[in-house]
Amino acid sequence: MSPRASTRERILDASLELFNVQGERSVTTNHIAAHLGMSPGNLYYHFRNKQMIIAELFAAYEARVDGFLRRPQARALTVADKTLYLEALLAAMWHYRFLHRDLEHLLAADPRLAKRYRLFAQRSLASAQGIYQGFVEAGVLQMSPAQIETLAINAWIILTSWIHFLCTAAGAASASLSEDMLRRGIYQLLALEDGFVTAAARPQVQVLLDQFQVPLSFD
Amino acid sequence: MSPRASTRERILDASLELFNVQGERSVTTNHIAAHLGMSPGNLYYHFRNKQMIIAELFAAYEARVDGFLRRPQARALTVADKTLYLEALLAAMWHYRFLHRDLEHLLAADPRLAKRYRLFAQRSLASAQGIYQGFVEAGVLQMSPAQIETLAINAWIILTSWIHFLCTAAGAASASLSEDMLRRGIYQLLALEDGFVTAAARPQVQVLLDQFQVPLSFD
Repeated sequence: MSPRASTRERILDASLELFNVQGERSVTTNHIAAHLGMSPGNLYYHFRNKQMIIAELFAAYEARVDGFLRRPQARALTVADKTLYLEALLAAMWHYRFLHRDLEHLLAADPRLAKRYRLFAQRSLASAQGIYQGFVEAGVLQMSPAQIETLAINAWIILTSWIHFLCTAAGAASASLSEDMLRRGIYQLLALEDGFVTAAARPQVQVLLDQFQVPLSFD
Repeated sequence: MSPRASTRERILDASLELFNVQGERSVTTNHIAAHLGMSPGNLYYHFRNKQMIIAELFAAYEARVDGFLRRPQARALTVADKTLYLEALLAAMWHYRFLHRDLEHLLAADPRLAKRYRLFAQRSLASAQGIYQGFVEAGVLQMSPAQIETLAINAWIILTSWIHFLCTAAGAASASLSEDMLRRGIYQLLALEDGFVTAAARPQVQVLLDQFQVPLSFD
């Protein structure tokens, strides 16, 4: 890695950490530079403004989700795959939690990001439908194509709105979000399929439900 | 109604209409006054700032939802009640759609409104659980208490995030939202219970599902 690439990475890492803990609105590029013991001029050399940093963090998030949100070819899905999908979704949501928290505001501020987000959402919805279809073919779920389409949309909304729900309805502060609170969001996602699990897969899915069930406390 | 109360009502009605169509961010108190052919001073006499108008519109929305989101005492629920709840939710979401569209921004700008919203959310979640419990007792749904708690939370998130989903993922513009697009949100809500409907209630619930199913188009 060249020294220049390395500085770039350090800026992205520090920005992500500060955005996640303090909220993107409260963090300026000057804060980020100060946090890194770097001059603002050095930071501007790599990123002209905060929007560019956000766009690059979003691209990394998008690449990560695109990487795991796909149906494996040439083999049937199992409940073990479901565990992997859910853990991967949880890890991505936790790692990039500021994106979920501040999304409305971020998209309103940047029309190019809004367009990119829309394409990402539509791609993710198509992938989710393919994965649910895979679980139907594997005998884990029993659903019609119309139910799969509806489920994929509800799954997207629950996942992308969970942190917002915690912060608005449950009274959580951005800085006090814990990975456990996000785990409950994955439980809510899994619960969407609850009524469609086949009798054969029920015992294994119940283990998974228990694994993600975290009590929810309201402030 | 006194002339003063009437001016107050006119300001609230005009604000709601402008916020709904143009988005709350694009509308200033000067726009509202001009729309009513009123001097800004006259408007300020009734509302010191836009935040006060929003708080009063939110209170009206809250009172409306509190009014219908309750389980009737002393009689069993029927699928006909479900239709009434869904139509009432649709009408309230449509009438106050700017609140759903711009919520994150509105709550960030007003900590008192954020607190009030939190209490409203928790009250609504408790009411929703009571209503779902009523449908279980009436033999329409078959669910455990844990499933009811989870379903109520998912229902809240789908309803309150639906317009946001349309605007961010489906590419709808605020001004082009139609009641039909919101109707699809009610379908998504109803679909959450799909896997828990009893065999006895299935034919009636299927009629209801068909009634709310609107194709969703992505821009």
